[in-house]
Amino acid sequence: MKKVSFLFVFILLATYYSFAQQAKYVFYFIGDGMGVNQVQGTELYRGELNGKIGIIPLQFTQFPYATVSTTFSATNGVTDSAAAGTALATGNKTKNGAIGVLKDLETPVNSVAVWAKEAGHKVGIATSVSVDHATPAAFYAHVAGRSSYYSIGKDLYRTGFDFYAGSDFLEPVDKSGKDTENLYDLAAKNGYAIARGYKDYQKKSKKADKLILFQSEAASEKDRYSIPYAIDRQKNDLTLQDITRSALNFLSKDMSKGFFLMVEGGKIDWACHSNDAATAFHEVEDFDNAIKVAYEFYMQHPDETLIVITADHETGGIVLGTGPYELNLQVLKNQKVSEQGFTRIVNNLRMETKNQVSWESIQKALKENFGFWDTVKLNEKQEARLKAVYEKSFQNQEVKLEKSEYAQDEPIASEAKRILNEIALVGWTSGGHSAGYVPVFAIGAGADLFQGRIDNTEIPFKIAEAAGYSHP
Amino acid sequence: MKKVSFLFVFILLATYYSFAQQAKYVFYFIGDGMGVNQVQGTELYRGELNGKIGIIPLQFTQFPYATVSTTFSATNGVTDSAAAGTALATGNKTKNGAIGVLKDLETPVNSVAVWAKEAGHKVGIATSVSVDHATPAAFYAHVAGRSSYYSIGKDLYRTGFDFYAGSDFLEPVDKSGKDTENLYDLAAKNGYAIARGYKDYQKKSKKADKLILFQSEAASEKDRYSIPYAIDRQKNDLTLQDITRSALNFLSKDMSKGFFLMVEGGKIDWACHSNDAATAFHEVEDFDNAIKVAYEFYMQHPDETLIVITADHETGGIVLGTGPYELNLQVLKNQKVSEQGFTRIVNNLRMETKNQVSWESIQKALKENFGFWDTVKLNEKQEARLKAVYEKSFQNQEVKLEKSEYAQDEPIASEAKRILNEIALVGWTSGGHSAGYVPVFAIGAGADLFQGRIDNTEIPFKIAEAAGYSHP
Repeated sequence: MKKVSFLFVFILLATYYSFAQQAKYVFYFIGDGMGVNQVQGTELYRGELNGKIGIIPLQFTQFPYATVSTTFSATNGVTDSAAAGTALATGNKTKNGAIGVLKDLETPVNSVAVWAKEAGHKVGIATSVSVDHATPAAFYAHVAGRSSYYSIGKDLYRTGFDFYAGSDFLEPVDKSGKDTENLYDLAAKNGYAIARGYKDYQKKSKKADKLILFQSEAASEKDRYSIPYAIDRQKNDLTLQDITRSALNFLSKDMSKGFFLMVEGGKIDWACHSNDAATAFHEVEDFDNAIKVAYEFYMQHPDETLIVITADHETGGIVLGTGPYELNLQVLKNQKVSEQGFTRIVNNLRMETKNQVSWESIQKALKENFGFWDTVKLNEKQEARLKAVYEKSFQNQEVKLEKSEYAQDEPIASEAKRILNEIALVGWTSGGHSAGYVPVFAIGAGADLFQGRIDNTEIPFKIAEAAGYSHP
Repeated sequence: MKKVSFLFVFILLATYYSFAQQAKYVFYFIGDGMGVNQVQGTELYRGELNGKIGIIPLQFTQFPYATVSTTFSATNGVTDSAAAGTALATGNKTKNGAIGVLKDLETPVNSVAVWAKEAGHKVGIATSVSVDHATPAAFYAHVAGRSSYYSIGKDLYRTGFDFYAGSDFLEPVDKSGKDTENLYDLAAKNGYAIARGYKDYQKKSKKADKLILFQSEAASEKDRYSIPYAIDRQKNDLTLQDITRSALNFLSKDMSKGFFLMVEGGKIDWACHSNDAATAFHEVEDFDNAIKVAYEFYMQHPDETLIVITADHETGGIVLGTGPYELNLQVLKNQKVSEQGFTRIVNNLRMETKNQVSWESIQKALKENFGFWDTVKLNEKQEARLKAVYEKSFQNQEVKLEKSEYAQDEPIASEAKRILNEIALVGWTSGGHSAGYVPVFAIGAGADLFQGRIDNTEIPFKIAEAAGYSHP
């Protein structure tokens, strides 16, 4: 009896699976630095903003498949974005710092995006940071060191995907002087249009065969390293949702070909390197808004679309709760700008006053941007800490900018952020990465492959299996 | 065509599911305080012990279904074990501190274990801490406050499951004096045999209709709050694996009835309240060893067995990595006892020397139990910190025991543990709980119900669905 029923079930399942369709349209979202607590913190923050204990779920956490993934690199218990990107892109562990090569730093390995291209699909690689940054680069470049930005830029053309997007190139010109070709000039030679901003994309996309989307030149002059944080966003700033919408629009011009699109939420990591909880939660929410573009597409093509969400590693060692058995995340709503944004405000005050900034004007700025002395009451100790930092960095003019991975911030901005995080009962461990599990969520064709705890190197192969890409 | 294939698949699946069997044998393992990082840390520690970067997986993380769960209580973003236990047992969020009642603190709610009993199954509740502690109590008791240990003990008999196990009762006698019945005396009256230790269990189990397994009286005289930590274990100490083996043996006397068994790894939490990484990782591994007993049973009865693993909350805010992009977990192998165990060693030194403990004898003890000055090199600062603590707490006799949730430790034990954790690059945030996701793993009949991110209140209902229990 048992044997018969097993055989019967086997035949039924085999029949079922032969009916299951392949993922013709693949979205691969990577939240840089988005550990499990970054996701959970954002949802609990949304809950508290709505006056409840508990979560208001993001879109992607409601996907029917969820699991966790390990992230260690070939050489380090704690990975960097280069090795993690290489694992997520190519399925190979490598040395921290290496991109698209094995840990011998020589043997190139291709990514799932290349496998998709070879299978005849359209391919796009997009991010909210520079297009040559570690995570996007791992999908198209092969360099021993992640900071070889010019080489990475050359590889972008060499690999020749259909669509790229990011804030800009970091090194359009070869610093060493060996190579005289400017990366912008190379675009046309390689058949790429460069669009600057969302409106420019809309103008150029129809005629373009291949396209690179960057933010406006004005925005890049201000900060070429990334598009602005969601919390700092001004009208007309390029957003990750704009980028995702453009990428989808471009890749789906000819739906018959199918596509593979990787989108990185690159600044979750940056906010976490700065231990800036309000900014990080806004970035996770913004990443979710980009994912919603893909989800809308999935709703139209549920049988042929796969969406996978994961992260390369955790950043900052964020902990939700610092001792008391409660959270006070709603207080973070008083923060109106990132730590970096507040640094700009303070810099402006320095310029306006020829560096004679009064305590009263700092207090005003802190009230406006952190709610201090207004909706956020400070105790004596907290106030004294702010005053001490003010005296040191303004009256005594000993300005020692607080350095984190991607920012140098005014001490008063760092102290204000630190105090607000403490009031919110959010803890941080360091300015670096940690080795915790990262979350994995999936929906659509082949999403059922994402079950059980996995390693980051398994993900590109699972995508390839779902989409029917050949791979080595 | 599409409609036809949908209908066809529906019929196939319906046929398949009618063949899928119910979970006649259910194991529900709860790792108290076992957040995702406690699990991942243990696996990375095992990896490093074997000289590799990466993990040596535990048994339970290899189960085919894995996801994460939210844990907030009805009243707090950060739950305690009582509210979390009530959620995991009954499917209801309640107030922190409450057990088996709604947040009005009055309305009793029954647990999945009661549903199992009502469905005619044998039921066992087991833990490595006292049997009346929050997590086990949530499965059989109804009290507004978790520390009403005597009331909880009475409820244990009132609910009348077949098997209970833990270190002991915490309050065998009613402190208030209102009730004169001793909980030990009530055993016989309620048809229970009490076994003391594994050998005693083996002697008494055959004849007993219902049974309570405690550690030996000698062990309880030393410490009735829990069985010893795995890292401190001596020959003849009762272990969580013994307890699980006994529970399974007892409940499976008559296999025709089926069973429900909850096993709590209660001291992962305690080690994390003390921020003691080596002790915590050993506890997680020990919990896995208990799970292996269930896994062996599953291998014999794969179609009718369900094993679910989860945690009630995270404790300590442990972070794997404190800045440098690496871990040094292997150094933890030099720790031979828990912080609490080292406190006992130091107490003995105090007694032996009439409190005239020399720095040399402390150094010797630190060398033997933490590897300091031997396999673990200390820098000048670390050595100075130890010396300063020694001078304060021994020469100046200012002993201020370091208090954590479940322990009062010698300052020198706390400082030694702290230094070893720093060298291991393990960070801790507080002595309390945090609100991070907890992991969920499942294997066996109905394990496929554990997909997608869930809330802790969903788990008992999923178990009931898998096992066919009726519930309100």
